[in-house]
Amino acid sequence: MKTVLNNFIDEIHPPCAGLTREGQAYLDNLTKPVGSLGRLEETALKIWRIQGKRPLAVDPTLIYTVAGDHGVTAENVSLYPPEVTRQMVENFLNGGAAINVLCNSLGIEQMVVDAGCFGPSFQPHAKLLEMRSGNGTANFTKGPAMSLSQCWSCLNHGITLARKASDQKFNTVGLGEMGIGNSTAATALFCAYLDLRPEEIAGVGAGLPPGGLAHKTAVLNQALRVNRAAQQNGDALEILAAFGGFEIATLVGIILGAAHENMLIVVDGFISTAAYVAAWKLCPMVREYCIFSHKSKESGHALILSRLNETPLLDLQMRLGEGTGAALAISLIRSSAAIFNQMATFNSAGISGPAVAKPNGDENDK
Amino acid sequence: MKTVLNNFIDEIHPPCAGLTREGQAYLDNLTKPVGSLGRLEETALKIWRIQGKRPLAVDPTLIYTVAGDHGVTAENVSLYPPEVTRQMVENFLNGGAAINVLCNSLGIEQMVVDAGCFGPSFQPHAKLLEMRSGNGTANFTKGPAMSLSQCWSCLNHGITLARKASDQKFNTVGLGEMGIGNSTAATALFCAYLDLRPEEIAGVGAGLPPGGLAHKTAVLNQALRVNRAAQQNGDALEILAAFGGFEIATLVGIILGAAHENMLIVVDGFISTAAYVAAWKLCPMVREYCIFSHKSKESGHALILSRLNETPLLDLQMRLGEGTGAALAISLIRSSAAIFNQMATFNSAGISGPAVAKPNGDENDK
Repeated sequence: MKTVLNNFIDEIHPPCAGLTREGQAYLDNLTKPVGSLGRLEETALKIWRIQGKRPLAVDPTLIYTVAGDHGVTAENVSLYPPEVTRQMVENFLNGGAAINVLCNSLGIEQMVVDAGCFGPSFQPHAKLLEMRSGNGTANFTKGPAMSLSQCWSCLNHGITLARKASDQKFNTVGLGEMGIGNSTAATALFCAYLDLRPEEIAGVGAGLPPGGLAHKTAVLNQALRVNRAAQQNGDALEILAAFGGFEIATLVGIILGAAHENMLIVVDGFISTAAYVAAWKLCPMVREYCIFSHKSKESGHALILSRLNETPLLDLQMRLGEGTGAALAISLIRSSAAIFNQMATFNSAGISGPAVAKPNGDENDK
Repeated sequence: MKTVLNNFIDEIHPPCAGLTREGQAYLDNLTKPVGSLGRLEETALKIWRIQGKRPLAVDPTLIYTVAGDHGVTAENVSLYPPEVTRQMVENFLNGGAAINVLCNSLGIEQMVVDAGCFGPSFQPHAKLLEMRSGNGTANFTKGPAMSLSQCWSCLNHGITLARKASDQKFNTVGLGEMGIGNSTAATALFCAYLDLRPEEIAGVGAGLPPGGLAHKTAVLNQALRVNRAAQQNGDALEILAAFGGFEIATLVGIILGAAHENMLIVVDGFISTAAYVAAWKLCPMVREYCIFSHKSKESGHALILSRLNETPLLDLQMRLGEGTGAALAISLIRSSAAIFNQMATFNSAGISGPAVAKPNGDENDK
């Protein structure tokens, strides 16, 4: 299996860095002061390196909202009971959740994936994919959250989902998730991968009762102690199995698969950043395919993003997940591509450039 | 004239603060953790206070890109020659500028207003409104930029533009501008209104040659000295006439007029924030109608926003104007309204609330 994965990762090719200069020159010749569209230009350039041709194509866009349950909820690490994961999946399928509203109003396709919620499979639904790797993860304060074979199953599912999206001609995939307890899982992953302590990054997630943060931190420290062998081995997959959720590990597969398919990947918030870190540890190249959508209000996200040297496009004090931040950023990413595709150049519009570029150049002599 | 304006301002009524609690309770009952949509919720609440009924209606949306020229360009305060203002108006009319691309791709209407560019009127065009208050402003290092009657003319034009938008059933108006030299005018206005020094807030605008910032700062100090009577009188209109541009003063009228018409107003970047400050000095109530779209890369904007106690929705390191930041934020504002209009409530979706709300409440005893 490891060889298969390594071969797959080897096939992920780097976007063409050689295109940077050409893309930048093109942007600099559009009718605006050089660099004045800031992050939009940077984003257009990223898409240009991936796609290598004009017009840049962001759409069609698909968000996968992947759901899974967490054994660690037995430790009371959330204000919400674990049955809310299933209830929210039903809400996604009925179209009443925030991610449905955003996808509908922004023209983004959405699919819901059951990666392993507690309880039986869901009733079939046109928007639902059953890709279960178990019936909720195990409580990782007692041992690993999942077996290595469950972890492989998640990665395979994710890669399949990415290929499916590519086959359906989607150009962009957004990462969404739902899982009561998954901010605890994500925090454990960040600690293990980035050598952080729970005290530095643990937050309230969807909500905690008074005193809940100290308890959550203690639970995390216990989990890190119990699974310290995984961390000490430094094996990215073993760490993912020890602390991940099925939804998180499936997102790792989606990231690897989407990069393999040369797609644009939009990372959502705190939880999907954890999936990103796992994918990036397995294959640093995925960074070139990922756009960070928003800085979560979850308190540790800022420190984690700074460790990763990433600045998301948005900071809207959101902490919901589901892919909501990714959906909002997709509008900005589309605008970035439109700028690159449609603006006039100085020459075509007959506009004077900066005085510095004019032959008589008098304005610069002062 | 002053009485007419005061009467008009008296007719701007406050959005209903009494609706805040009802709107917040409604938001808190949607299927998400309380407050987890952050700035989207805050924005929805603002629209709710203005409109007072569901569904909230952001669209149709119109951006006015108002252009004018500045006598202070004679002092070499920009890297670009003043003829670029006219050339960019032509570019707007031909659809090649950034604001055209963003409005087209986001489904926003756009109109261009000539508030007083150097030279003759433009050829008639379906997207152009001629509302000239002069042939470029005077050089405000020698005296006021415009006469009081020119300033009244701009305000009237702006009020007319807002009423026109309201008559055409637009619910939202975005502020855009173009005018070589107008970062110098805006900086002077900020200094006069907010008691700041040019050294604290002057930036490079669309671009400056090496050494240009010190020169621009000296020009600003000269202008503030020459027009110190206006500042000492503390009369908001006199200050606007002393330092404003025709496009800026017309935007002031649009803000007052749009608030009068109960419309949502989206402020763009550095220049349109100067128009906002003038309007806010004339009528503090306009604050309740305005949404700040983005923090400009123009260096002084951050300090000015903090003085105003405003946090824009976006920070994309942009410094272009034209209404480009407003256009991008409109997508977020639409999403805010969609959340309020379309999400399911906990009851309707049959989802368990936080454990704290459950009768048995065991989860909270730890």
